[in-house]
Amino acid sequence: MHEFNLIQEYFTWDNPPSNISVAVGDDATVLDFPAGKQLVTSIDTLISGVHFPDNTPANAVGHKALAVNLSDLAAMGATPKWFTLALTLPEIDRDWLKGFSDGLKALADQHHCFLVGGDTTRGPLSISIQVMGLVDKGRALLRSGAKAGDKIYVTGTLGDAAVGLQSESDDFCKQRLNYPTPRLAESRVIKDYASACIDISDGFLQDLSHILKASTVGANLKLFSLPLSTSLKEMDQKIAMKHALSGGDDYELLFTIPEKKEKEFLTIIANKATCIGVINKSKEQITDESGNSLTSTGYNHFHD
Amino acid sequence: MHEFNLIQEYFTWDNPPSNISVAVGDDATVLDFPAGKQLVTSIDTLISGVHFPDNTPANAVGHKALAVNLSDLAAMGATPKWFTLALTLPEIDRDWLKGFSDGLKALADQHHCFLVGGDTTRGPLSISIQVMGLVDKGRALLRSGAKAGDKIYVTGTLGDAAVGLQSESDDFCKQRLNYPTPRLAESRVIKDYASACIDISDGFLQDLSHILKASTVGANLKLFSLPLSTSLKEMDQKIAMKHALSGGDDYELLFTIPEKKEKEFLTIIANKATCIGVINKSKEQITDESGNSLTSTGYNHFHD
Repeated sequence: MHEFNLIQEYFTWDNPPSNISVAVGDDATVLDFPAGKQLVTSIDTLISGVHFPDNTPANAVGHKALAVNLSDLAAMGATPKWFTLALTLPEIDRDWLKGFSDGLKALADQHHCFLVGGDTTRGPLSISIQVMGLVDKGRALLRSGAKAGDKIYVTGTLGDAAVGLQSESDDFCKQRLNYPTPRLAESRVIKDYASACIDISDGFLQDLSHILKASTVGANLKLFSLPLSTSLKEMDQKIAMKHALSGGDDYELLFTIPEKKEKEFLTIIANKATCIGVINKSKEQITDESGNSLTSTGYNHFHD
Repeated sequence: MHEFNLIQEYFTWDNPPSNISVAVGDDATVLDFPAGKQLVTSIDTLISGVHFPDNTPANAVGHKALAVNLSDLAAMGATPKWFTLALTLPEIDRDWLKGFSDGLKALADQHHCFLVGGDTTRGPLSISIQVMGLVDKGRALLRSGAKAGDKIYVTGTLGDAAVGLQSESDDFCKQRLNYPTPRLAESRVIKDYASACIDISDGFLQDLSHILKASTVGANLKLFSLPLSTSLKEMDQKIAMKHALSGGDDYELLFTIPEKKEKEFLTIIANKATCIGVINKSKEQITDESGNSLTSTGYNHFHD
């Protein structure tokens, strides 16, 4: 594989912005770093057949590989700046590369996040992206700040991506699976109000349990308030609820807002987030409005 | 695969230093960044059977995956600080993981470079490491600064790793292949004197041609001065020279020193680098002491 030609042809995009001192064409990338900021970085690998179905369009693979990383920055309240790409390909498939590059670039451009380095190798299809962003010093949004009385919120709707994995799902849910939206716009508001935040990649209950564990608190949920898309509202409600509670790959933000900040927060976030419960002092327990206990994988009766 | 347990068991090492504000256990890593520095970053993927023989010991794979990235920082005159690891494994092989983790940690500790995040996935064996380091603002060592009259230097000896790939090679060359030494100690001296620098990963002539192209200069070499190890000195000299000129994976530094700085440089670097030629004004041409022309892959008669 002629690595250099591949990079030249598919991954040389616009002129880099001024904060990139040295980009491609040297041994490493040199990046300017503004004062008063901290570096926030996350890396995720996507493997064909594991993290996306083998038949996923190349454009969607390019989008999703960056989106899942941008979502991690959104969950930290960070602003994305740069990313690197380690791309392993079984062969040079020009149609695939064009689609992948287009999907990746469209999302990168949207968030002004620049490709600053990478490595292409031959092997089974695998994509590792490391994203780097900035946060004001000491202001990163952690999982560990939730306190009893804080309200629990989520952005968007839940369970769509899990439904999108089913062969009979509608286009909306397939789109939600293939083109997740990193909630960076919402994050810019949330970061000034939230006490804790995580992105929902493993499933709502699973990721909620990460906040509860890190913050040593519990949660009481209003399950009837869980935000469901029209697609899920039209399904069998037991199945829809199972997907909303335990389905992965939604990449919505799950966060907690102290009660005294809630009113002001709501005037700014408007209808882009839904309150779905309240933090309490229980030891990492999750209950619903009827007092029934939920585990991080759902109600026990979902396992039948 | 229980990702969390794997990370806990094999990749939770010492307490992180104070410049790591948030390490594992949140959505991303938060790193403190000193004033007056630039961020230098490089990513490399190693695939089994492509970048190292399938039978390479796990300990060596762990060492080499980090070493090739540290070598890129050395070539930039940067000080390594942090790295992330994207590890894809076909199965949980505890012996392999222990060996890999030990090899990785030993080298990371030696250079005070800390593992600050990662992702483990199931799939064909592949390792992507992104290393991050610091350089004084505007002081990164590029490929583009060589000028006519500058002396050409290399660290260490050349061709050992290429010989190590042969089944009949001695232990020294196998060790050089499996445990390359990133030349960070030498880099700390070189960065204050060199006009251009690269690390030798593709082969001496190939990497020299990168400097010549970036600097728009040529080179006249003293091939009899090429530093060879005892192992290569004892081989057929035509074959030894071929490996020294074109063999990859040496991870020595190749750099240029302006004539007026050479004397002072030599008193500090002592015997850790060898002068092997001089930069001239020719258009990316490489000649030997007899005026014979070399291509980036060697003499033509090496192709017979």
